[in-house]
Amino acid sequence: MRPAMTPVIQRRALSALVLAALPGLAAAQGRGDPLPSWREGGTKRAILDFLRATTTPGSADFVAPAERLAVFDNDGTLWVEQPLYAQFAFALDRVRALAPQHPEWAMRDPFRAVLANDMHALVQTGEHGLAEIIAVTHTGMSPEVFRQTALAWLATARHPRFARPYTECIYQPMLEVLALFRARGFRTCIVSGGTLEFMRPWAEQAYGVPPDQIVGTTFKLHYGLANGRGELTTLSEVDLLDDGPGKPAGIARAFGRRPIAAFGNSDGDYEMLEYTTTGPGRRLGLIVHHDDAAREYAYDRQSHIGRLDRALTAAPQQRWLVTSMRDDWARVFPDV
Amino acid sequence: MRPAMTPVIQRRALSALVLAALPGLAAAQGRGDPLPSWREGGTKRAILDFLRATTTPGSADFVAPAERLAVFDNDGTLWVEQPLYAQFAFALDRVRALAPQHPEWAMRDPFRAVLANDMHALVQTGEHGLAEIIAVTHTGMSPEVFRQTALAWLATARHPRFARPYTECIYQPMLEVLALFRARGFRTCIVSGGTLEFMRPWAEQAYGVPPDQIVGTTFKLHYGLANGRGELTTLSEVDLLDDGPGKPAGIARAFGRRPIAAFGNSDGDYEMLEYTTTGPGRRLGLIVHHDDAAREYAYDRQSHIGRLDRALTAAPQQRWLVTSMRDDWARVFPDV
Repeated sequence: MRPAMTPVIQRRALSALVLAALPGLAAAQGRGDPLPSWREGGTKRAILDFLRATTTPGSADFVAPAERLAVFDNDGTLWVEQPLYAQFAFALDRVRALAPQHPEWAMRDPFRAVLANDMHALVQTGEHGLAEIIAVTHTGMSPEVFRQTALAWLATARHPRFARPYTECIYQPMLEVLALFRARGFRTCIVSGGTLEFMRPWAEQAYGVPPDQIVGTTFKLHYGLANGRGELTTLSEVDLLDDGPGKPAGIARAFGRRPIAAFGNSDGDYEMLEYTTTGPGRRLGLIVHHDDAAREYAYDRQSHIGRLDRALTAAPQQRWLVTSMRDDWARVFPDV
Repeated sequence: MRPAMTPVIQRRALSALVLAALPGLAAAQGRGDPLPSWREGGTKRAILDFLRATTTPGSADFVAPAERLAVFDNDGTLWVEQPLYAQFAFALDRVRALAPQHPEWAMRDPFRAVLANDMHALVQTGEHGLAEIIAVTHTGMSPEVFRQTALAWLATARHPRFARPYTECIYQPMLEVLALFRARGFRTCIVSGGTLEFMRPWAEQAYGVPPDQIVGTTFKLHYGLANGRGELTTLSEVDLLDDGPGKPAGIARAFGRRPIAAFGNSDGDYEMLEYTTTGPGRRLGLIVHHDDAAREYAYDRQSHIGRLDRALTAAPQQRWLVTSMRDDWARVFPDV
């Protein structure tokens, strides 16, 4: 800096530097409500109390920045999972797109059922049918080819009810939680039952979560040379099923530490919530309860998608917050 | 900042802020040689040329910061691997420490061989014997218990030749490479054939590499409740063998992108080097060649530990740099 600079300009330069270097801190200290899409109430207060307790130096519950890990389920927690998981809608669309190359599919379930829109027959094929559909649509290609395929689908597919791209069927209140946690020095990581390769291409743009802060279901990878270039191919053998007890395992493998905050919405998140909140010190566990048929969906104990039964029963004893989408969220989706 | 502050103090405050916020940049722009332990020569020039080409805005080979991923093998690349991998020395010491609880080991190989220092018999037990030793010393406990055990060993164990802790048998020239790459906006990640849980407890202090930037061999994890707390237990089933073709797979799983620079020293790094350097654009592959019996060790094609044969043969055609420890490194270890 040149000595001729005036103090005012120096102060401006200093401010610019602080803002550039510490965007999180600057955002956190900005004026106004950091969670504007959350209605005033116990859940919002509990989130803010938790952040204050764990990030205020000198607080009895202060947590060093390196230990500030918050984990978020994706389907039903960060974006819509009804009437069908987006990734399964993708798989069905891929079967339709690939069908001309597979005339034999017209005669053989589960493919025949998909192509005939015979959802009853599709359900009858059970886990085996599902595995076949996932295998032909997700494996036998490089992660890069899959990535391009997923991005192309996301660019054109529309949610059947909301008639907008799936990546816009994300929850505005949760975007605010992600941003606020990051502003307070947390790493915000996604721990999805969907596949890692499906999440990575778009999660950074949608949620601000980079590829290496995502845990998901993985397949084994084969390494080999193709035209002189080292390439990986996704195999159909599952490496990690990132659901239920697989979520704590996936978190430990990826980050090597126990989270101090966890957000979920279904029984598949039970173990992740339990692993997080039974650790020592101040902890936060939160369940998004879908009770808003008017603006989104209402489902819990009886749903085949995103069933919330065991975790809902356990929530009071485990001191997990149960957020009512209807009552706690002033809005559901971001403006687009 | 108060208006009464003098410009000099403001400049000092500004400098302090820049240094605090941007240590990498500050270090990179500091005066002097960024690789002082490297003798002048082709290897050092090639490293600096690569960094200049990939990080200078406007360069034809410029690489965006998010894509700047550099991967480093550990054993033999960042620290000494002779006369025995440190992790195997740890396992043998653990067998000795646990022996009083297992009187039956006195009669049964591979344990009898370890306890009798009968290395010939130990080698005869082969892979099965090795797997048994790893199982009893590395699995059946929580990652946290293992972490404490590994740290306790590292605090007291000494390298048999250099008579210093293993964490001080690390290579000063490579510490400078790690720091310089980070200063130029690279993520520097370790990709070790050793286990992830063995690397994580000490790599940040030794190398500046945090737990989530390490890839290593992993075991499957079991999740369950113990005394009301969710706990993981390491199982003896291998999840990822992070060696050879497992290295590119581990890198893709952890980071979701192909590195642009790779550092290794043995045939176990062949596929990682190939995966890195056959990608499009400017790439760097480097092999540390142990040819310095006076200061460290001299071994390559015939060694059972850290064999370097296939990769040494392929290096010229693959345009991998082969660094001579004897000729290129002005010093080997850091001062302690």
